[in-house]
Amino acid sequence: MLTAAGNIFEHVLRDAVDEEFAELVAAEGVRIERIASTGQASPPGFWYDQEWSEWVLLLSGSAGLLFEGESTPRELKRGDYLLIPAGRRHRVEWTDATEPTIWLAVHYGFVAPP
Amino acid sequence: MLTAAGNIFEHVLRDAVDEEFAELVAAEGVRIERIASTGQASPPGFWYDQEWSEWVLLLSGSAGLLFEGESTPRELKRGDYLLIPAGRRHRVEWTDATEPTIWLAVHYGFVAPP
Repeated sequence: MLTAAGNIFEHVLRDAVDEEFAELVAAEGVRIERIASTGQASPPGFWYDQEWSEWVLLLSGSAGLLFEGESTPRELKRGDYLLIPAGRRHRVEWTDATEPTIWLAVHYGFVAPP
Repeated sequence: MLTAAGNIFEHVLRDAVDEEFAELVAAEGVRIERIASTGQASPPGFWYDQEWSEWVLLLSGSAGLLFEGESTPRELKRGDYLLIPAGRRHRVEWTDATEPTIWLAVHYGFVAPP
């Protein structure tokens, strides 16, 4: 987890092999994380399928986010935000190859345990 | 409320008299809003005192956030984030006079109704 205060653009590994997930807030009902991508994409055929909602805000770089059933990815650039409703299958088609793509993701609406 | 998808830097009134609060997500347990400040500060003697937690990320501009009991405001610039725990009294001492200060605020940890 990153510290309770800091700068969201710091401590990003520019040459990371994998996407980097850093937790900023983990509390009941909400989880905030920073995702740093450096050219990665979701593996071929892979879809994220989450039982909770995810609100994302792209802070730097750019990315293509594809929702299942749509023919072309939505291109996200700095400042673009998007709600991914629970159960809406999606994948990251591409992220910027020239600079780190920093996402803020707020996860919420978790299904309560039975 | 802003739309479910958009750009967080758009539709900011540069000459607004008051701070502008725009709701991005309102769901059970979490509320995400954009706050646009154009030089405003909290009124003299006023303290925010919230029964829930607020995580803030400064996206543009700059601001001075004072916690009660601290002698100097914390200066926030682009990319700086900060957790304001429930019950931690605070105020905005100043915001940038030359460009809009855009904050992302995630409110969570609401006290459940009795």
